[in-house]
Amino acid sequence: MIRIGVIGYGYWGPNLVRNFAELGRAELTGVADLDPKKLELVNKRFPAVKTTTDFLELLNDPEIDAVAIATPVDTHFELGMAALKAGKHVWLEKPMTETSVQARQLIDAADKRKLVLHVDHTFVYTGAVRKMRDLVKSDDLGKVLYYDSTRVNLGLFQRDVSVISDLAVHDFSILDYLLCEQPAAVSAGGINHFPGTPENLAYITMFYDSGAIAHVNVSWLAPVKVRTVLVGGTKKMFVYDDLQPSEKLKIYDKGVSFTDDPAKIYQMRVGYRTGDMWAPKLDEQEALKVGAEHFCDCIEQKKQSLTDGRLGQRVTELIEAATASMKARGATVHLPHAEKVL
Amino acid sequence: MIRIGVIGYGYWGPNLVRNFAELGRAELTGVADLDPKKLELVNKRFPAVKTTTDFLELLNDPEIDAVAIATPVDTHFELGMAALKAGKHVWLEKPMTETSVQARQLIDAADKRKLVLHVDHTFVYTGAVRKMRDLVKSDDLGKVLYYDSTRVNLGLFQRDVSVISDLAVHDFSILDYLLCEQPAAVSAGGINHFPGTPENLAYITMFYDSGAIAHVNVSWLAPVKVRTVLVGGTKKMFVYDDLQPSEKLKIYDKGVSFTDDPAKIYQMRVGYRTGDMWAPKLDEQEALKVGAEHFCDCIEQKKQSLTDGRLGQRVTELIEAATASMKARGATVHLPHAEKVL
Amino acid sequence: MIRIGVIGYGYWGPNLVRNFAELGRAELTGVADLDPKKLELVNKRFPAVKTTTDFLELLNDPEIDAVAIATPVDTHFELGMAALKAGKHVWLEKPMTETSVQARQLIDAADKRKLVLHVDHTFVYTGAVRKMRDLVKSDDLGKVLYYDSTRVNLGLFQRDVSVISDLAVHDFSILDYLLCEQPAAVSAGGINHFPGTPENLAYITMFYDSGAIAHVNVSWLAPVKVRTVLVGGTKKMFVYDDLQPSEKLKIYDKGVSFTDDPAKIYQMRVGYRTGDMWAPKLDEQEALKVGAEHFCDCIEQKKQSLTDGRLGQRVTELIEAATASMKARGATVHLPHAEKVL
Amino acid sequence: MIRIGVIGYGYWGPNLVRNFAELGRAELTGVADLDPKKLELVNKRFPAVKTTTDFLELLNDPEIDAVAIATPVDTHFELGMAALKAGKHVWLEKPMTETSVQARQLIDAADKRKLVLHVDHTFVYTGAVRKMRDLVKSDDLGKVLYYDSTRVNLGLFQRDVSVISDLAVHDFSILDYLLCEQPAAVSAGGINHFPGTPENLAYITMFYDSGAIAHVNVSWLAPVKVRTVLVGGTKKMFVYDDLQPSEKLKIYDKGVSFTDDPAKIYQMRVGYRTGDMWAPKLDEQEALKVGAEHFCDCIEQKKQSLTDGRLGQRVTELIEAATASMKARGATVHLPHAEKVL
Repeated sequence: MIRIGVIGYGYWGPNLVRNFAELGRAELTGVADLDPKKLELVNKRFPAVKTTTDFLELLNDPEIDAVAIATPVDTHFELGMAALKAGKHVWLEKPMTETSVQARQLIDAADKRKLVLHVDHTFVYTGAVRKMRDLVKSDDLGKVLYYDSTRVNLGLFQRDVSVISDLAVHDFSILDYLLCEQPAAVSAGGINHFPGTPENLAYITMFYDSGAIAHVNVSWLAPVKVRTVLVGGTKKMFVYDDLQPSEKLKIYDKGVSFTDDPAKIYQMRVGYRTGDMWAPKLDEQEALKVGAEHFCDCIEQKKQSLTDGRLGQRVTELIEAATASMKARGATVHLPHAEKVL
Repeated sequence: MIRIGVIGYGYWGPNLVRNFAELGRAELTGVADLDPKKLELVNKRFPAVKTTTDFLELLNDPEIDAVAIATPVDTHFELGMAALKAGKHVWLEKPMTETSVQARQLIDAADKRKLVLHVDHTFVYTGAVRKMRDLVKSDDLGKVLYYDSTRVNLGLFQRDVSVISDLAVHDFSILDYLLCEQPAAVSAGGINHFPGTPENLAYITMFYDSGAIAHVNVSWLAPVKVRTVLVGGTKKMFVYDDLQPSEKLKIYDKGVSFTDDPAKIYQMRVGYRTGDMWAPKLDEQEALKVGAEHFCDCIEQKKQSLTDGRLGQRVTELIEAATASMKARGATVHLPHAEKVL
Repeated sequence: MIRIGVIGYGYWGPNLVRNFAELGRAELTGVADLDPKKLELVNKRFPAVKTTTDFLELLNDPEIDAVAIATPVDTHFELGMAALKAGKHVWLEKPMTETSVQARQLIDAADKRKLVLHVDHTFVYTGAVRKMRDLVKSDDLGKVLYYDSTRVNLGLFQRDVSVISDLAVHDFSILDYLLCEQPAAVSAGGINHFPGTPENLAYITMFYDSGAIAHVNVSWLAPVKVRTVLVGGTKKMFVYDDLQPSEKLKIYDKGVSFTDDPAKIYQMRVGYRTGDMWAPKLDEQEALKVGAEHFCDCIEQKKQSLTDGRLGQRVTELIEAATASMKARGATVHLPHAEKVL
Repeated sequence: MIRIGVIGYGYWGPNLVRNFAELGRAELTGVADLDPKKLELVNKRFPAVKTTTDFLELLNDPEIDAVAIATPVDTHFELGMAALKAGKHVWLEKPMTETSVQARQLIDAADKRKLVLHVDHTFVYTGAVRKMRDLVKSDDLGKVLYYDSTRVNLGLFQRDVSVISDLAVHDFSILDYLLCEQPAAVSAGGINHFPGTPENLAYITMFYDSGAIAHVNVSWLAPVKVRTVLVGGTKKMFVYDDLQPSEKLKIYDKGVSFTDDPAKIYQMRVGYRTGDMWAPKLDEQEALKVGAEHFCDCIEQKKQSLTDGRLGQRVTELIEAATASMKARGATVHLPHAEKVL
């Protein structure tokens, strides 16, 4: 039984608490939050869980094996480092840290102590993304040509981070997981329509040395909610619509080939292939539960998480690069190192 | 009765021929194409129309008032200039010319001779775009905050021009018509997945001095066809889905306002307003027919076309700027002059 | 503060318990269920609520003002009658009783004691149905011509009642509320594909003296979930799609008129009118909460519920008639009395 | 080369003329219509085709092998019989005749003279219906449990036939082709909302001895166009949506099985199976062209059409039965003979 403390009971914390409480293999031991009213809510629902306004009580508790940190991003580094130094395994909400340098320091601190450092990039644990990864890995898709995501809705405006950190971060983690490749360069445009607030919409383009291109369109100011990703490969293409109640992932047996047919004068000598469409049954477990199970597995089996600090760090690098480009109206920003991901 | 000759009977020419033939107020006098087989088709369907493989026969025919040019873009300048010099009013397919310099020369040539120079940016004549323009002009939308278009499908790959000239050109003309403002700067990313071919997908972001931002996502390599534009204003928002058989344009009474409610700690003090949605009945006439009528009106009433050479030139400038940025992986390109459009 | 006991903590009971517990103006006093395991769940979630396996404890408790009964339908009459005789106001799950005769007896028992008898036809309390009712009442729709509902999905098969009692019952209550008229006759077809089970799909047609016609298509054996109602009036038409996340109700300014145009030879002289479409903002409160508020209002203000025993009885009459017709492969069944509903 | 004359150039005739003219293997020889204006249209488009206001000219022309009859249904019997007696193969628009007795007489007349008698139930020749038939025949679907069609839109009101003859006739022919079984009994409800006109909406339920049930919902008075068929089998289920631009036919690996699990108290012991969804690529040829090819094949190879007079007659029997039931508000009507179709 892994004993877990949760720090932060705001927007996302209750989901962590519920999942760890119901997991069966973990024991929710304590919850910390600065707001006593939030702790009252915990007390009502989970009378056996100890609550505190001082997160150090959790870190100093030798009974606790791991902490999950669901506080604003500007506290992630400090809390994460304190937890690692206290010998706790750490679950960090996304994005991992404000800077990639901080991310690197957390990785080192975890490595030194052989502690698990897991970043909650939840989408990686959805049935749809895991199926996409299987299809990429098995070469059913062929060579990946592009990834194109639209992730827009009305609200929720954040006060401390831009729409890139809030929404594009999901695509950055999915891309890292699918392509196993960090982009070589990024170009982004964005705007804050309301002075004094972070950018509320952004368009990010990523260039990969393998020849793939990725594009992410994120907004808090769209009249309709859209969560659609198109992925094109040389053999097949996907449409992943996360808002569909079923058949979220559709695989199209479509493609293009170049021919020598001299009859085509005005158009290129292109052949279009269209075949069946197929929507595989997906694992419908709650992604957060799958992630929580995986976190426990990593602790018990002393292994790295799928969404470990390294993935988390690469995502923060992308956020930094995209933000820098966005501030410069699209100027190309090269990633600090485009080393091949395993 | 305006007598019209059509040059080029390939992909789009037959639509021009059919529309001018059925217009009632114009007389289709002649058709020129280099390919005698195509002319046979014309002969079969329109026995009274004279056909020729030499476009000069049409230009030299004093019976002909105007010519419509539907040939590959690299011939537009030469044919258009010859037609203007022959004293003909000119209808040019989009994009107007290969370069904005050529466009300027055609404008001057037309102005000097007081001839109509119309560029076939057909979307401007659709019921949906005209309704959008009404709503922008009447301030129902409020200040325009963003325009976000997705225009993707599988094919048709072009051999001579990139997907920007083929598809983004539609948005460039719609934006010019809606916003009456040329962007100050452009950033674009794109790729040709097949060596030796033009770019087959591109993402273009445009920055306006008024504070608006526009984004266009175009591709010939998508598994599904999408033709969706989102437009956000301070008062209302639109979704324009050109693939819907009806209710193509939906107007959402939605918006965001910033409040002083101190209760919101983790989120900004934002109020979200959602009201009714409304899909106005649109004029369902074929846009090309509306454009052809307008061309005849302009000739008869000696007035400028809504999609005149100036609009056409601004579009070619945008294509040039977007293409330059795309070649430089997103580097900001400033437009040559961001003068206010009337 | 109205003190409420809930009998039955199976599929629907927990929703009642949650809503009454959170209402603010009612106090959840006790919960009865035959299954002690279910009561344990209640104890965990609501430690202050007393639980019992004997519903009589609730009825004999003088502290309790009202009981909500969420047990299998074959127990509704017995439990409801006992509760009324114990002087409790009664909330009954739908359908009210197994027979319309039983329904009448409950109505009489409630009337005699001046107790509120409320049937939980939840759909009547949705924002969409209340908006539809407003539009019918204000004559915006014109005369109602038809109501056509499709309510199908895969599962949940019931063991004790047919798909008519399970799903068509929703439309029967909506129709009663919208039209204020009981149909004069019913014809239904249906089938049980699996021997020894109740009918799992059914098609019911209702004929009204006013000239309207209604049709309900229900199934537990459809590959996709559909919840769509079309309503046609002489002035406007509705589409109500309960599965849409927003814009559930769309109002079409469409209609038909008969003209004297002699030009139409093969077709009738019909004019089709199509105008704007409009999706009004709907009240998005949980319908069950609205119903629970209404139940409390009725008790406090000593008034009849919108979904009182009389509406409940008319629904049971419709179920009886439709079931009789279904057993006779569509034979017309006249309703016992087609008296005008107020 | 089969020489064909077409009688009737109203709503559907031009489609026949175009298809036969472009077929390659047939020669469009003559067109008859009572209206000289319509014949002028033919002359313009097809100068080589002879036109006449007297259909007898076509029947008396020894050059003509076959005639296609696209006139109002009340003339089908007379014209069809005259054509057969003149030794012509006959293509009849749907429905075949006003009565099933007439249909029988045409069949006999054709059989006696060994002439092809083809009824234009076009849907049978669509890629979607042929694929459905393959899946039923190969037992991929399992035993057919139900067929449920919704075929509604606004207009076109017919003056001479009800919505059953106009729209439900499509489902009657599809059902005959898919199930190879005539229903044993029919129940229908319908209404004419406008006095003196045919019924403009109808709901028809068909009962089959095999245990299947079919239902058809047709209307000329719906605010939206719907063309959806659900088909459930013991192994798989279909959704056929004819309005989709692609993926018209979706096959769901879904089903229900009954188990002995005692844990399910309130629900039946039912297991729900859900697997992949699959949308096969369909033949996208125009169905009318496929039918026209088939008609030519039948003439050349002296074989029966897939949609021969017998299928046409069974459809007229269904129309008669459904209409009789509709006039009696759903009263069960037994089909004259429910003999097994081959």
